[in-house]
Amino acid sequence: MSRTFRRLPLALAFAAVLAAGLPVAASDAVAPASAVNATAGSAVDAAGLDAAALAAAAQLRDTAMAGSGAFAVVESLTTEVGPRLAGTEADARAVAWAEAKFRELGFDEVYLEPVTFNVWWRGHERAAVVGAFAQPLVLTALGGSIGTDGPLQAEVVAFPSLEALQAAPEGSLAGKIAFVNYRMERFRDGHGYSPASRIRGAGASEAAKKGAVALLIRSVGTDRDRLPHTGVMRYADGVARIPAAALSNPDADQLQRLVDRGAPVRVELDIAAETRGEYTSHNVIGEIRGRELPDEVVVIGGHLDSWDLGTGAIDDASGVGITMAAGRLIGQLPQRPRRTVRVIAFANEESGLFGGKAYAAARAAEDRIGDHQLVAESDFGAGRVYALRGGTEPAARPVLERIGAVLAPIGVAYESEGGGPGPDVSPIAALGAPWGQLAQDGTDYFDWHHTANDTLDKVEPAALDQQVAAYAVMAFLAAETTVDFGTIPVTPPAPSAPVKAN
Amino acid sequence: MSRTFRRLPLALAFAAVLAAGLPVAASDAVAPASAVNATAGSAVDAAGLDAAALAAAAQLRDTAMAGSGAFAVVESLTTEVGPRLAGTEADARAVAWAEAKFRELGFDEVYLEPVTFNVWWRGHERAAVVGAFAQPLVLTALGGSIGTDGPLQAEVVAFPSLEALQAAPEGSLAGKIAFVNYRMERFRDGHGYSPASRIRGAGASEAAKKGAVALLIRSVGTDRDRLPHTGVMRYADGVARIPAAALSNPDADQLQRLVDRGAPVRVELDIAAETRGEYTSHNVIGEIRGRELPDEVVVIGGHLDSWDLGTGAIDDASGVGITMAAGRLIGQLPQRPRRTVRVIAFANEESGLFGGKAYAAARAAEDRIGDHQLVAESDFGAGRVYALRGGTEPAARPVLERIGAVLAPIGVAYESEGGGPGPDVSPIAALGAPWGQLAQDGTDYFDWHHTANDTLDKVEPAALDQQVAAYAVMAFLAAETTVDFGTIPVTPPAPSAPVKAN
Repeated sequence: MSRTFRRLPLALAFAAVLAAGLPVAASDAVAPASAVNATAGSAVDAAGLDAAALAAAAQLRDTAMAGSGAFAVVESLTTEVGPRLAGTEADARAVAWAEAKFRELGFDEVYLEPVTFNVWWRGHERAAVVGAFAQPLVLTALGGSIGTDGPLQAEVVAFPSLEALQAAPEGSLAGKIAFVNYRMERFRDGHGYSPASRIRGAGASEAAKKGAVALLIRSVGTDRDRLPHTGVMRYADGVARIPAAALSNPDADQLQRLVDRGAPVRVELDIAAETRGEYTSHNVIGEIRGRELPDEVVVIGGHLDSWDLGTGAIDDASGVGITMAAGRLIGQLPQRPRRTVRVIAFANEESGLFGGKAYAAARAAEDRIGDHQLVAESDFGAGRVYALRGGTEPAARPVLERIGAVLAPIGVAYESEGGGPGPDVSPIAALGAPWGQLAQDGTDYFDWHHTANDTLDKVEPAALDQQVAAYAVMAFLAAETTVDFGTIPVTPPAPSAPVKAN
Repeated sequence: MSRTFRRLPLALAFAAVLAAGLPVAASDAVAPASAVNATAGSAVDAAGLDAAALAAAAQLRDTAMAGSGAFAVVESLTTEVGPRLAGTEADARAVAWAEAKFRELGFDEVYLEPVTFNVWWRGHERAAVVGAFAQPLVLTALGGSIGTDGPLQAEVVAFPSLEALQAAPEGSLAGKIAFVNYRMERFRDGHGYSPASRIRGAGASEAAKKGAVALLIRSVGTDRDRLPHTGVMRYADGVARIPAAALSNPDADQLQRLVDRGAPVRVELDIAAETRGEYTSHNVIGEIRGRELPDEVVVIGGHLDSWDLGTGAIDDASGVGITMAAGRLIGQLPQRPRRTVRVIAFANEESGLFGGKAYAAARAAEDRIGDHQLVAESDFGAGRVYALRGGTEPAARPVLERIGAVLAPIGVAYESEGGGPGPDVSPIAALGAPWGQLAQDGTDYFDWHHTANDTLDKVEPAALDQQVAAYAVMAFLAAETTVDFGTIPVTPPAPSAPVKAN
């Protein structure tokens, strides 16, 4: 079904909503024929759902809470594949793993979708203070950084913020190492990440503009472990490319203390890292096919790749495991939901949402954005879900409210404002696909994010089960409702809305 | 004063105590002349202390609690020297640092005492699972281990305990890597350390007896960080020497999960480590000289060396900082205490109490064990003190009780049973020196002990102040009392008593 054809009647309905200034009962806005399903005979409510659908959703929730199987999926991926940096041999093993796992879990269709990108490679990375206070420093190269091309030794100049670096006089860092020592703040919703990761992304080029030969940053993380946090950085066009690395929090403390003593502090860096040629990985997709509208889809997923330092348990084997387990539970219901539930293990989220962009681009090219009833990605760790939010027009809100009501007993509150789509679904959301968000408690997420500490022991099975319950209920009810989110014109989210977890 | 000469009258007094079956008033057992001090005119109590001494002790406590200066000492050592593995260039810098710091803090005498040992050297250390589940493992060589002499690849055989390894049939591990996966338990007093560190110490030779080519153990630690714990191991005579390393806790989990899948798991180790020639480091000693009995001493201290992975903030810059600060506060009193307070920064505790053994041996050779009124080492991290214990004969207990009474307001309870001397004072305690113990809360000590995470951020300044208060009061009152612990014959502690923190 083409997007244009499907959108017309709903656009009119939406116009009517606006004219009335009130939410319209969503069931008024869909063709009555689409309510013919296993619950025929039951009345659909304002959310386009009947009693049988709501009972099935409650059953999904309770089944998941009693043991969703998600932990076993996370255990399998993180143990058998381990770290899976995009473009490595482990990436290929992860793709094979995901394809096999979707089949093992009883998905109706399993297929791959190519995603091409340049491969970033990490080699050795060593650093040390030299001179009177000689000692090693623990750091890690930022994803995308070049290496030092052998040992590089220079004096360190410290800045408390990116703004302070930007305010440095032109040329004042010639031959120096810039050190931006900004400490990320801890919040449940992770909103301390954005101001800190901005430095990680842009710092190298800002330092290079002042003449610096390398950039060091304090790790973007809320822990006090001597484990540095990697994460992607970018070089601005037309600016010299300099190596960029993150010190662990204790090492950033230490370097600052040494700088504060007043004498010049020299650091030697020896980092081997480079961007190599193209590689084609895959989004791996498993579907529970809709019984009535199989081409209309509810997308849930996580990303299959991980950084190389840990085993990617919270980032993002958890998201993969949660959504695979949710899809499996939906597939175990007595009948398929009306629409297709599509679970996607996205490729190479970490280097820049390559899987999500490829997915959106392919759907846009085929004019299938409008097929998307709801899109959601779980990419914020393994903490419990506390809120449901949606990026839909008002007509779809009764459905989200209904999902929230089913999830309220497990601690999920529907919030009509705020939030944003997960990273890999943000490209398609930006093209108009309605998005859902199941906001997780990320209080400790940034203690482990992008470090060697991202390992299975940080994942609590019972918390995963709660998340599976939330995803299964949301995906099932969005797939089952007679309301059609997909043809409601959606205002793309503001650029600042998503808390990107890559 | 020779030990024999000094002991006679007290031995008689002690016999009288035993005969009476009651503690004797300690002041009866000392020459009245020794009570001639600034507090002359005040009556000494059963603990050999007068009101002025007790007031001075309370003042020391309150001064320390208000800001002892210990954190600045810990900050200085861990920042300026950083890690200081015995026998390295940083060891020499640490000795120079300690000598200068004692002088800066106003100690009356500062001197060095040579301590000779063989140097252990750590090189690179890499490990990986190879084959179908290929992935890196994070480990660290145990102190004293040999290296692998290039990459070594073998199948892993897992055991839950040292006993299970010992029960393996002869030759059953030929060509294999033994993996002892025993998890240390967490306790406030750290008593989970002993059964776990026993495996670290003896495991390599036990594995070699069965034919193993290398030993892996789960780190001796209570954390879940991907940071392995090093620590000393020993080779048994007449048994093949094989490399020994500790996996971080998450890596031990991972390796066990892979082994549990049933197929052979092969691991490649590449560890460069070796024991090199002799090196002479130093115990660094600072004294607040006693005003009446300068040759009688109360010893407090910590160890100056640290493992190389962290900066040795809790192990044991804290002990050095606490006892230096305690000595400094005593030195700032209007007058010196009756006896000398000797603060020792011991050399190379980590490889086997070399500094403590050298100190005890030198005193034994000079017949000066009996000079020791009380010996105590702070080597259990930076947590608050909760108990005072002593290894003295009953006649000295009134003094310990009095110390406990002064410390009660800051959460320290006197316990008449249990405990043991700190590691570096255990050799001299075994020769008869009375010991004190200020037991610290070590609940989280083994989260960081012997890892890269042993850094300054783990040290809470206010907790250090409380410890300084405890050490200052104990050292001052033991130095000031007219009771003479040093000539009371002491039963050496049972070998199992000390919780050795090396």
